[in-house]
Amino acid sequence: MFFLYLRTMNTEIITIGDELLIGQVIDTNSAWMGEALEREGFKVSRKTAVGDVEEDMLDAIDSALKRADIVLLTGGIGPTKDDITRSTLCHYFDCGLHFSDEVYENVERIFYNSGRGMNELTRNQALVPDACTVIQNRAGTAPCTWFERDGKVLVSMPGVPHEMKWLMTNEIIPRLKQHFCRDLFILHKTMWVTGFGESALAIELTDFENELPSFIRLAYLPQPGLVRLRLTANTQNEEEAWKAIALQQEKLRQILGNHIITEEDKPIEVLIGEALLAKGLTMGTAESCTGGHIASMITSIPGSSRYFKGGVVSYSNDVKSDVLGVSTEDLEKHGAVSQPVVEQMAKGALRVLDCDCAVATSGIAGPDGGTKEKPVGTVWIAVATGKGVVSECYHFTTVRDTNVLRASSMALLMLLDQLHHNRL
Amino acid sequence: MFFLYLRTMNTEIITIGDELLIGQVIDTNSAWMGEALEREGFKVSRKTAVGDVEEDMLDAIDSALKRADIVLLTGGIGPTKDDITRSTLCHYFDCGLHFSDEVYENVERIFYNSGRGMNELTRNQALVPDACTVIQNRAGTAPCTWFERDGKVLVSMPGVPHEMKWLMTNEIIPRLKQHFCRDLFILHKTMWVTGFGESALAIELTDFENELPSFIRLAYLPQPGLVRLRLTANTQNEEEAWKAIALQQEKLRQILGNHIITEEDKPIEVLIGEALLAKGLTMGTAESCTGGHIASMITSIPGSSRYFKGGVVSYSNDVKSDVLGVSTEDLEKHGAVSQPVVEQMAKGALRVLDCDCAVATSGIAGPDGGTKEKPVGTVWIAVATGKGVVSECYHFTTVRDTNVLRASSMALLMLLDQLHHNRL
Repeated sequence: MFFLYLRTMNTEIITIGDELLIGQVIDTNSAWMGEALEREGFKVSRKTAVGDVEEDMLDAIDSALKRADIVLLTGGIGPTKDDITRSTLCHYFDCGLHFSDEVYENVERIFYNSGRGMNELTRNQALVPDACTVIQNRAGTAPCTWFERDGKVLVSMPGVPHEMKWLMTNEIIPRLKQHFCRDLFILHKTMWVTGFGESALAIELTDFENELPSFIRLAYLPQPGLVRLRLTANTQNEEEAWKAIALQQEKLRQILGNHIITEEDKPIEVLIGEALLAKGLTMGTAESCTGGHIASMITSIPGSSRYFKGGVVSYSNDVKSDVLGVSTEDLEKHGAVSQPVVEQMAKGALRVLDCDCAVATSGIAGPDGGTKEKPVGTVWIAVATGKGVVSECYHFTTVRDTNVLRASSMALLMLLDQLHHNRL
Repeated sequence: MFFLYLRTMNTEIITIGDELLIGQVIDTNSAWMGEALEREGFKVSRKTAVGDVEEDMLDAIDSALKRADIVLLTGGIGPTKDDITRSTLCHYFDCGLHFSDEVYENVERIFYNSGRGMNELTRNQALVPDACTVIQNRAGTAPCTWFERDGKVLVSMPGVPHEMKWLMTNEIIPRLKQHFCRDLFILHKTMWVTGFGESALAIELTDFENELPSFIRLAYLPQPGLVRLRLTANTQNEEEAWKAIALQQEKLRQILGNHIITEEDKPIEVLIGEALLAKGLTMGTAESCTGGHIASMITSIPGSSRYFKGGVVSYSNDVKSDVLGVSTEDLEKHGAVSQPVVEQMAKGALRVLDCDCAVATSGIAGPDGGTKEKPVGTVWIAVATGKGVVSECYHFTTVRDTNVLRASSMALLMLLDQLHHNRL
């Protein structure tokens, strides 16, 4: 097959703030931005985080603009002294500041709506660099600024997640699409595969991988209970990309068969919601060691009130017996982390929450509370439906957070399995 | 005051993986690493994320090693083809690979313990670059490799969070402390301040900030309902740092008084746990719009079972009335998002979960479901105790996730306020 390496519009993201470097804040912005950009065919080739230090910011901006066509900055544009992105950009683009009436009106409107008074620092938010085009930030007071040089674009945005998201969706991405004639089409397709570890799956797919055309890449993204298998096509021709990916997907279906649980790369909580809505069913939760995390995952999806009735976080044995009706005898005899208890929790949730199916978890999240028979990471999970209850014991890790995440995912995978196999 | 700019051991973190750039995975590793390094006095000056592309990795490694003394890599060392960190490091350090018996034994042990069989790809994990010192990864199969050149150190670690954490804690940080004689002491102190917006607080602190010695910096980290105020001292003299910070803290106490709700920079869920344990009290939750997120925050803390009895996620009105005993009349008359309903939810939780205090939330998380009277972002929050119930209505944003996070934080801040002011 004839193949050309094509020039693409490289995008780099620079996040600014000491709090990102010393770990006081986890950067969720750049992941969201990466996804939103990729969806529109902009390739993110690098992300850099620097502190509120002018020298470091200048160096990061300058080298990013040398490599990339688009550089997106977030953070460091609040009203306080520690935020120096605006003055740094003035230095970099060698310009001064001027007062923008348009920005001032926006700031005034936001303060008026929130019932707070303006002050000197908030008024200064209306000072903008001469070299930029101002983009109004309808979601907050700090304006977004757009710079162009030698056909390249640099945009400075607030670091506040919902302001950044509003700006990216409504302003930045539409303008970037207009500004750049993209000459490369990028297509991702991800399948979820169960029943294989990462390397066992790679061995199964050795021949498949060797036969892949050079413009398609395969990546393995292991997760609790499954491996996400991602095919990526990079080509100038959109039709070619769709055709080639469809062909490779078909090959994977033939090799992996039932091991593929879905070809839609959606979070498990979305897949659960879609399956429940399709069947007109409702669900509930009874959580011990996952402590509300499963309910929280399910309710993170807009519209989940159509199928999620509620949940009980039965952290203490009292709540397990008093609210969910678990037998106190079984609690004493088998302990809270046991098959009879987790099954009664799931069945109790069905009854108390009046739903069609329910998941339950009971385990030892750690770091303490493990025993020789039930070490930290031991988790019982049950799924109850009108047709009965299934349960399984898992052994995860010694790390609390990891155990909660894994148990939550496995519980929802078990529920999805019940929903998919038409047992409901 | 006499002041010297001191040379410090600069550390950079490079995270590797296409999944980080296209946003399939949120990078929580580098925040954890930043915090762990800062605690030990290593300054993280930059973080870079690149894809599984050799050219980009080489460039990122080379420029990081030019700027920094320590470069820590995570990711890209799994057994599959898309992981190329090891081969890239061989190119960069101009060396070959050899088979390490020691690593092989570790891989074999892990496979044996997990009951899985080895295969060709997992055996290959024992191939290590000639130029490195191998550090055993007791938490997983991919070995950690340590390279030195011109007095600088580069370490390549797995991207799997619990493996990276085990390695950093038990191997990397102790070795870095031994290898580098740190000549700069870094001290952070963070206070939580309520009752001010970010800029109003900055104006209040104008004089304070102007009088700060040049080796102390002040940063404003706004959060829902509060501003975290961080003082950072950078100096050669540990004693000087502690003294200077203590002096500035005392000044802030005099300026801000009761607006300081804590001087310990701990997550709100930790502060709640400490306050409950100190008073020998238990708590519970009744969540509607936060969907289990508050329970999940509370139970993320090890040992929370000592004070958290459980929670009810009453997403549907049925669960609000049937499980928590909210009056169906009030639900109909005032709607679920109302003062009477949220107060009855909190009191219901006290009774049903048999706890000493309870928080309840009911609101419109969005993006849909808003009305003119109750737009998206309207959230009622109540705290019930033996002494009665307090409640408050908030107006957050139009973004679902943000509303859940803000409502959860505000609910816990309201509870902390009740606990602090000895009303319990």
